[in-house]
Amino acid sequence: MDKFMEAAIEEANKGLKEGGIPIGSVLVHNNQIIGRGHNKRIQKGSVVLHGEMDALESAGRQPATVYRECVLYTTLSPCPMCTGAILLYQIPKVIVGENITFKGQEDLLREKGVEVDVLQESECVDLMKSFIKASPGLWNEDIGEID
Amino acid sequence: MDKFMEAAIEEANKGLKEGGIPIGSVLVHNNQIIGRGHNKRIQKGSVVLHGEMDALESAGRQPATVYRECVLYTTLSPCPMCTGAILLYQIPKVIVGENITFKGQEDLLREKGVEVDVLQESECVDLMKSFIKASPGLWNEDIGEID
Repeated sequence: MDKFMEAAIEEANKGLKEGGIPIGSVLVHNNQIIGRGHNKRIQKGSVVLHGEMDALESAGRQPATVYRECVLYTTLSPCPMCTGAILLYQIPKVIVGENITFKGQEDLLREKGVEVDVLQESECVDLMKSFIKASPGLWNEDIGEID
Repeated sequence: MDKFMEAAIEEANKGLKEGGIPIGSVLVHNNQIIGRGHNKRIQKGSVVLHGEMDALESAGRQPATVYRECVLYTTLSPCPMCTGAILLYQIPKVIVGENITFKGQEDLLREKGVEVDVLQESECVDLMKSFIKASPGLWNEDIGEID
């Protein structure tokens, strides 16, 4: 498997072990991970730290030129908020673990010129399927849906 | 002036006094402020805590039904990331202080059924004009533009 998607899955598994929502992400620049993170809704009571946002936050303040050379890896298709963050920072490429359990704003990303590759990794699908089955209320909360 | 926009401007001024980017926001539910915040890029080294995001974060974990009855006040037109957060949580109404110094994704919000009112408050315009003039580099960083 792609080593960066492996790192994103590691993050998702970290989240799961913490009792959190198992979605992970890494931000890659020049073939190096510069930010990594996972969903922190449960752990920090955060409504903004989805996996992708946590990875961006952990990378710290980067020049605009750096974001424009980055690839963002995420285990799950990005929701509207994370999509917006990708567009704000003009990240040109997003690698998605899977979009079977949730399909985010991939169309908007592509429309704005972002390259989006979906790997459909069974490990990512299994993580989300198990989580959603065990904790449907938490999952609905995370994507703004009424439980 | 609208008392909730006044509260958002108070937040923007708090940010300015802290040496930060002067954009503030409040989240209002049933005519009560349930979250308030301001841009924390400088103060926390945060790349995700724009004013609107900080207000959402300060409101904590709310049920989906609450967000859908909220009004979000922000001193400045919402960038793509904050627009995405508004869409994720299906906040139906956004009151914008001004969109002269920066125009965000108001069209996308309206297209998705969000009511967007722009007040063009001179106090909001003045805050941003002074800040952008004094710190163009920080401002460009905040909106992902190359300095």
